[in-house]
Amino acid sequence: MDLKKSVSIFILILCLAYSAFAQKKSIYYPIDEKFMIGKIEKTPELFHRIDTSAYAGLPKRVSYLATHAAGLAVGFKSSSTKIRLKWCVKGNGANGNLTPIAQKGFDLYIKHNGKWQFAGAAAPKDTCSDVEIISNMDGSEKEFLLYLPLYDELKNLEVAVDENTTISAIAQPFKRRILVYGSSIVQGASASRPGLNYTSILTRNTGYQFLNLGFSGSAKMEPEVANMVASIPADVYLLDCIPNSSPEEITARTNYLVKTIRQKHPSAPIILMQSLVREHGYFNAKVGTHVSDQNRAAQAEYQRLLQEGITDLYFLPSTNFLGHDHEGTVDGTHPNDIGFERMVKDIQPKILDILGKYKL
Amino acid sequence: MDLKKSVSIFILILCLAYSAFAQKKSIYYPIDEKFMIGKIEKTPELFHRIDTSAYAGLPKRVSYLATHAAGLAVGFKSSSTKIRLKWCVKGNGANGNLTPIAQKGFDLYIKHNGKWQFAGAAAPKDTCSDVEIISNMDGSEKEFLLYLPLYDELKNLEVAVDENTTISAIAQPFKRRILVYGSSIVQGASASRPGLNYTSILTRNTGYQFLNLGFSGSAKMEPEVANMVASIPADVYLLDCIPNSSPEEITARTNYLVKTIRQKHPSAPIILMQSLVREHGYFNAKVGTHVSDQNRAAQAEYQRLLQEGITDLYFLPSTNFLGHDHEGTVDGTHPNDIGFERMVKDIQPKILDILGKYKL
Repeated sequence: MDLKKSVSIFILILCLAYSAFAQKKSIYYPIDEKFMIGKIEKTPELFHRIDTSAYAGLPKRVSYLATHAAGLAVGFKSSSTKIRLKWCVKGNGANGNLTPIAQKGFDLYIKHNGKWQFAGAAAPKDTCSDVEIISNMDGSEKEFLLYLPLYDELKNLEVAVDENTTISAIAQPFKRRILVYGSSIVQGASASRPGLNYTSILTRNTGYQFLNLGFSGSAKMEPEVANMVASIPADVYLLDCIPNSSPEEITARTNYLVKTIRQKHPSAPIILMQSLVREHGYFNAKVGTHVSDQNRAAQAEYQRLLQEGITDLYFLPSTNFLGHDHEGTVDGTHPNDIGFERMVKDIQPKILDILGKYKL
Repeated sequence: MDLKKSVSIFILILCLAYSAFAQKKSIYYPIDEKFMIGKIEKTPELFHRIDTSAYAGLPKRVSYLATHAAGLAVGFKSSSTKIRLKWCVKGNGANGNLTPIAQKGFDLYIKHNGKWQFAGAAAPKDTCSDVEIISNMDGSEKEFLLYLPLYDELKNLEVAVDENTTISAIAQPFKRRILVYGSSIVQGASASRPGLNYTSILTRNTGYQFLNLGFSGSAKMEPEVANMVASIPADVYLLDCIPNSSPEEITARTNYLVKTIRQKHPSAPIILMQSLVREHGYFNAKVGTHVSDQNRAAQAEYQRLLQEGITDLYFLPSTNFLGHDHEGTVDGTHPNDIGFERMVKDIQPKILDILGKYKL
C-alpha cells in the first residue's frame, strides 16, 4: 500500500470516528418562556399554571396543585436526529392510579402531514432524570410538541439535540382560549401519558386551545376560586367541577361561579358539565346516590340560572361520557384512556357546535 | 316515660350501636387453591404461574417472571356489603409505564345480569397493604372475580367480608384452555388495571379461558421455553412472542416452537401473531425497520411451516392491532387501554372463527 493511500484511509477512519462521536454528543438547551404552549398566564415559576400570589384567599390545596404542570407543553423545532430531556420534579409520592410517565414524565408529538402524531414517551428515573425520548430520526426539520408532567411540580427542563443542530420556538399552533376549570379528571387522572389528558386531546383534535385548570380533588367552586377563574381572560369557560363538589356545595356555589364569570365576560359562552358517572357507584349505593344527587343539583342550578336570565349558558349531560361497558375508568372514578377517548367523542362535537354559533 | 319504655329504648340503642359496630368489623379469609381462576398448573407457591422447578434449563429471567401473578384471578361469592383485601407483594421497583394498581394492585368484577362488570380497584399503599376495594353494597349474594397484580410477586392475600357473612369458592366460570405465550404485552403492559390485560378481556368477552404466559421482554422462544410451552396441556396455543425475538431468532426458533407443540398436541390449533407495530417506529427508523423485519420473518416462518405440512396453523397479521391514530400505546411499544381494546376488537372475531372450526 502506498503512502498516499494509507493517509487517505487514515483520514477516512478519523472522519468516521469523528462522525460516530459527533452523533452521540448532545447539547442541552434550557426551556424558557418562548417555548411554552398552553400557559394560562405569566407565572413567576415557568412551569406553574397560575400565579397564585395574584389571587387572594385561594385554598391552600388549590395553590399547591397550581404548581403541577398539567396541560402545559413545550413547542420547538429542530433537525436533530434525537431528542433528550433532562429534568427535575419536586417529587411528591406516587399516585396509585397514574403511570410514572403520566405523573412525572413526558410524551412527545411530531407534526406529520399537518397533524400532531405521537412519537415517544419518557419515564422518570428519579427526582431528576436524563432520558432520550426519541432517536434515529431522519434529520429533517420537524416541529415537536412535548407535554409536561400532569401530577408533579416541574422544577426545570432542558431539551438536548445533536450538537450540529439547535432548537427554536414554534408559532402558537392553537387558537382562542377555552378555560377548563375542574377536578382530577381535568388535571389528567388517569391518562396513561400527559398528552392523553382530555384537554390536550381536545386541543390537538380541534385546533382550539383548551387551558387546563384542573385541581385534583379540589374543584369546589369556593367564591375565591370563582373570582380567580372569572378574572382569567378566555373566549369560552368550560366548567367540569361537579365531581368534587357535594350536592349542597353545587346548590350553594354554582350560581355565584357562573354569574361572576358572566359579569366579567358578558358574551363568553359558559358550558357546565355534569359529573361523569362513577363506575363503582353501580354497586356502592352511597357513591351511586351521591353522583345522582350531584348531577341533579347541577342540572337544577343550570335551570335556575337560565330562569334568572343568564344567556350563552350551556349544559353537557354526562350520560355517555364513559360509554356503557363499565371499562372506561382505572378505579371507578378516573377515566383511563378508553374513558377519555369516549368522553372526547361525546363532548367534542357538542363543544364545536357551541363554538360555531359564536364564530370563534 | 315508664320503665318498660325506657328499657325498650335502651335496648334499641344498644342494638343500633351493636349493628353499627358489627358493620365495621370484617373477617379475613386467606385465599387458597380452591379460589384460583386462570391457573396454568399447580405450583408450590399459589400465586406463581408455573412451577419453574419442573422445567429444565429455563432462562433465569423467565423463571423470575413466572412468579408474577399476571392473568391470575380469585373467584368467590359472598353476601358481604364490603370487600377488603390484605396482601403483600415482593416489592420490585416501579415500572414507568404501569399504574401501581396494575403493577401491584387489584381490580374487582361482579357478575351482573350474566356479565362480569367492573366494581372497584385497590392501589397498594406499601409492600404490604390493607385496602377496602368496594363498600356499601346491598348485601345480596354476589359472585366476585378479583384480578391479581400483573407485575410483581404476590406473597399472600386475604379477602375480608362482613363478620356475619363468609366467602366460598365459585365454579370455574370459563371453558377450555387457550395458552397465550408472549411478551410484556401478554403480561399486561400497559393496562391501567389488572383486569384490562388483553388475555383477561378476551376471557370475559368470550367465556374461553385465555391462560397468561407473558414474560416481559423475555419471550424469545428458546428451545427450553418451547419445550415448557409444549408440555403444558391446552386446547389452543396462541403465540404472541414476536415482539421480543430478533428477526434472526424468529427465523431460527419459530419452527422448533411450533413443531414441538404440534408433536405433543397433534390436533390443537396453533395461532401465530405478528408483532404489533411500535408507534415510535414511524419516526425512529431503526425501530421501524426492526419491527418490519420481525414481522416479515414471522410470516416467512409461517409459510415455511405450512409448506412443511404443518396443519391447523393460523396467522394473525398485526396491521390493525392498535388502530391508526397512533394513540394506542403508553410509550410507543406497550398498548394502553385504547390499544388493548382495539387489539381485542381485531383478534377476538378471528380467534372465535378458529375455535368455531374445531367446535371448541
